[in-house]
Amino acid sequence: MLVYRIVPFIAAAVVACTVGLPAGAVAQVPESRVVIQVSDADPGKWNLALNNAKNLQVDLGGAKHVDIEIVAYGPGIGMLKADSVVGNRIGEALGSGVKIVACENTMRGQKLDKADMLNGIGYVAAGVVEIVRRQQEHWAYLRP
Amino acid sequence: MLVYRIVPFIAAAVVACTVGLPAGAVAQVPESRVVIQVSDADPGKWNLALNNAKNLQVDLGGAKHVDIEIVAYGPGIGMLKADSVVGNRIGEALGSGVKIVACENTMRGQKLDKADMLNGIGYVAAGVVEIVRRQQEHWAYLRP
Amino acid sequence: MLVYRIVPFIAAAVVACTVGLPAGAVAQVPESRVVIQVSDADPGKWNLALNNAKNLQVDLGGAKHVDIEIVAYGPGIGMLKADSVVGNRIGEALGSGVKIVACENTMRGQKLDKADMLNGIGYVAAGVVEIVRRQQEHWAYLRP
Repeated sequence: MLVYRIVPFIAAAVVACTVGLPAGAVAQVPESRVVIQVSDADPGKWNLALNNAKNLQVDLGGAKHVDIEIVAYGPGIGMLKADSVVGNRIGEALGSGVKIVACENTMRGQKLDKADMLNGIGYVAAGVVEIVRRQQEHWAYLRP
Repeated sequence: MLVYRIVPFIAAAVVACTVGLPAGAVAQVPESRVVIQVSDADPGKWNLALNNAKNLQVDLGGAKHVDIEIVAYGPGIGMLKADSVVGNRIGEALGSGVKIVACENTMRGQKLDKADMLNGIGYVAAGVVEIVRRQQEHWAYLRP
Repeated sequence: MLVYRIVPFIAAAVVACTVGLPAGAVAQVPESRVVIQVSDADPGKWNLALNNAKNLQVDLGGAKHVDIEIVAYGPGIGMLKADSVVGNRIGEALGSGVKIVACENTMRGQKLDKADMLNGIGYVAAGVVEIVRRQQEHWAYLRP
């Protein structure tokens, strides 16, 4: 529990310990980074995930203030298929700077290849590994 | 990966680096802080969220040992409407110290104003931003 | 926000501050630790949770590189009952090193005792407390 309770004081400690870092060295990292999971075969959830991404951009002061990555895997992979009912919204989200990736493990299991998927999206070997790694990198996790 | 693997040792490092902080400076923070998301239009999930909050209070030794905030947004907003089927449980949870907030973005989208909502709840501009901010502040995240 | 933005620099700070720790002191901790929540009465979700655990092991280079704990509670408790439709997969997962625990709060509420449950699983007093504690210990959280 000790680690947990002192977390608010890490800033002070780190500042004290990092005298000598070049000024402005931390400026490039957006204030917020959020990984959004889509793992339901439910267009309602797909729309909710896209709404969430948009609201985060608007309410945090613009896309440059937040990195957002949507990871679709398992039953959620349909969100990113070429015939997805939210296909046009995916294009808009990509255009606004949201990163959207499909899980290649899931695609293999469902015999999908990149030609079956929407243009412009990215790919990761394993959706769950991506979500875990992002949390390890201190991204917030959102599961709509 | 390095950051992640050394996390258990941050405590020692920070203690070593913070000699000089006033004694007891960290004492006011409850040991646990948990943000609970409600984003389903499903009374079963609303009850589960309320059960989770209660269990956290009981099993962590009482409400003073845990800060809990329930954030309802999107299809979950119905949990906090004046005619909610869990209205009486919301009152109990508020009475026990749980903070419960509704997303004003969602309310605007559904043409709801505060007069349509249960008494005693709080409001946040954007539910997803609240959930992300809490995680940035090192609250645990629970999505029943 | 300061704490959040400087997180990538904590490693450097801690290294700077921990000169003197015994060499290799951090070697025993697996690179990744993931707590997976099962709280739906939905065999599709139970299978997805088990798929996720397996994919994490495979894609992170083997079970020794990742600690995985599946926590079943609330409506998800059926996953671990003796008559569970995924009973054989639970055995496999346990054999591969996944820790799988049932919530005793939920069991009490549903008048289940250990004789009603699958062999080999573990038990925790409260599933939600377990999930919160794991996050406090910096485990990633996955809610399939």
